[in-house]
Amino acid sequence: MAEEPPRHPSAKEILDASPAADWRTLDPANTLYMDLQAGRVVIELAPGFAPEHVANIRTLAREGFWDGLGIYRSQDNFVVQFGDADADAEDAAKAKSLGSAKTELPAEFARKADGPAFTRLPDVDGWAPEVGFVDGFPAARDPATGEAWLAHCYGALGAGRGGPPDSSNGSELYVVTGQSPRQLDRNITLVGRVVKGMELLSAIPRGPEPMGFYEKPEERTPIIAIRLASEVPESERTPLQVLRTDSRTFADATEARRNRRDDWYVRPAGHIDLCNVPLPVREAKH
Amino acid sequence: MAEEPPRHPSAKEILDASPAADWRTLDPANTLYMDLQAGRVVIELAPGFAPEHVANIRTLAREGFWDGLGIYRSQDNFVVQFGDADADAEDAAKAKSLGSAKTELPAEFARKADGPAFTRLPDVDGWAPEVGFVDGFPAARDPATGEAWLAHCYGALGAGRGGPPDSSNGSELYVVTGQSPRQLDRNITLVGRVVKGMELLSAIPRGPEPMGFYEKPEERTPIIAIRLASEVPESERTPLQVLRTDSRTFADATEARRNRRDDWYVRPAGHIDLCNVPLPVREAKH
Repeated sequence: MAEEPPRHPSAKEILDASPAADWRTLDPANTLYMDLQAGRVVIELAPGFAPEHVANIRTLAREGFWDGLGIYRSQDNFVVQFGDADADAEDAAKAKSLGSAKTELPAEFARKADGPAFTRLPDVDGWAPEVGFVDGFPAARDPATGEAWLAHCYGALGAGRGGPPDSSNGSELYVVTGQSPRQLDRNITLVGRVVKGMELLSAIPRGPEPMGFYEKPEERTPIIAIRLASEVPESERTPLQVLRTDSRTFADATEARRNRRDDWYVRPAGHIDLCNVPLPVREAKH
Repeated sequence: MAEEPPRHPSAKEILDASPAADWRTLDPANTLYMDLQAGRVVIELAPGFAPEHVANIRTLAREGFWDGLGIYRSQDNFVVQFGDADADAEDAAKAKSLGSAKTELPAEFARKADGPAFTRLPDVDGWAPEVGFVDGFPAARDPATGEAWLAHCYGALGAGRGGPPDSSNGSELYVVTGQSPRQLDRNITLVGRVVKGMELLSAIPRGPEPMGFYEKPEERTPIIAIRLASEVPESERTPLQVLRTDSRTFADATEARRNRRDDWYVRPAGHIDLCNVPLPVREAKH
């Protein structure tokens, strides 16, 4: 009998064997809980890329801005969007007050690339010269301009804007629920990503075409509350760990997905797309 | 005052101005209607790429194989899957008969590229040497091997298989509902694509991780019927036209999305991904 070829471990086996140091616990000050009737969506904020937006979002959450508002848009293969459906009402008095949050912020489409550690993927990307991960966030980089920016992958959280580039204030937010709309990169400010609970957003019934805004208020999905984890009693928190994207485990698991996967595959892809790389998440052990 | 720069038409304006000859009416013999309680999903089959599977699917539809079965899997950011949940039951007697359809088919992962007209996109792709469209289907091609194959984009319809590459028979089908899993290309047989009604599949509640198979039969979404349009009385059909992907209108609309879009964008992407190119669909005029 012929010898069996050496078997490479699968991504799951690599994760199961990972050292504890390759995981990090989410910082409660950078974690948002979006509580819906169906459950909790956990979001990690990205102050390294959008410091002004994240500061405003912290204020809005602290003051309960989103509590009792809803998800008012669900466009198939694109985004869900939530906040105050009357924010742009003709009668400005109908719009909910932003409280002590700022009403105007600078656009935060990109940052200097020399700050954060960038774990580059070797894979070609059509949208940017270089792609990879920064602290768990899929990101891109251009050596020619010295800029880095977050990428619109599935689960990305962004701040809706109107015509002017600096018209977002972080109160109207969207989450990508479809094929990654990378054409939005550097055209709108990304502020974080969903790390758990995407299935609560992605399965929300779609609104009418072309934009997915619901016609009737009762079609909206109510938001019970959006709070910073740091402002929630510890007993009510959802403690999570995410795999460090600069770890050996992450690199090995990504390589397993890129080239080996399991025996079901008859042909290795030899490639992985930035937005096809999952971020492993697990419950934090107490 | 400075003159306004010349304004390029948007993708929508290009479509609105398109000549009738740039559209084709779906062939009823290659069109499947999947009727759910929530409405109708319209699928175009791809006999040019998977002739044996499509022939079997026609037989299964004609004999009502899927009628009364259900969607038994919904995995977030991946696929929904439907057919006979008991197809692989330990008690083989529980499996629904395939009637006069074949129980075994060859794998149809790729075909010779010299047959169909291939409208190539100029955009780089990490998964394949060349990508583009064949008769409305996103596809890839390798000049080195002379092969062409369908690509796993959002809305792609594939035939589930087990371990052996040739273990699909077209009775268990899946539709991509998440970020394009292109690693599946040439590892499983694609048989068509959804052209209308994706929002009825994409918003189906997700089953439990990791695979999304429901635990209880009552969680499944019932299938009223799957029929060939050609076997449905004309008064009950959904007559659709799709834009010819080898037309000037399609090329111009794609270029508008790649580089110009509308004035909201401050930075053109200069790129479009194969799976980000929408297929324009409209009602056929009588």
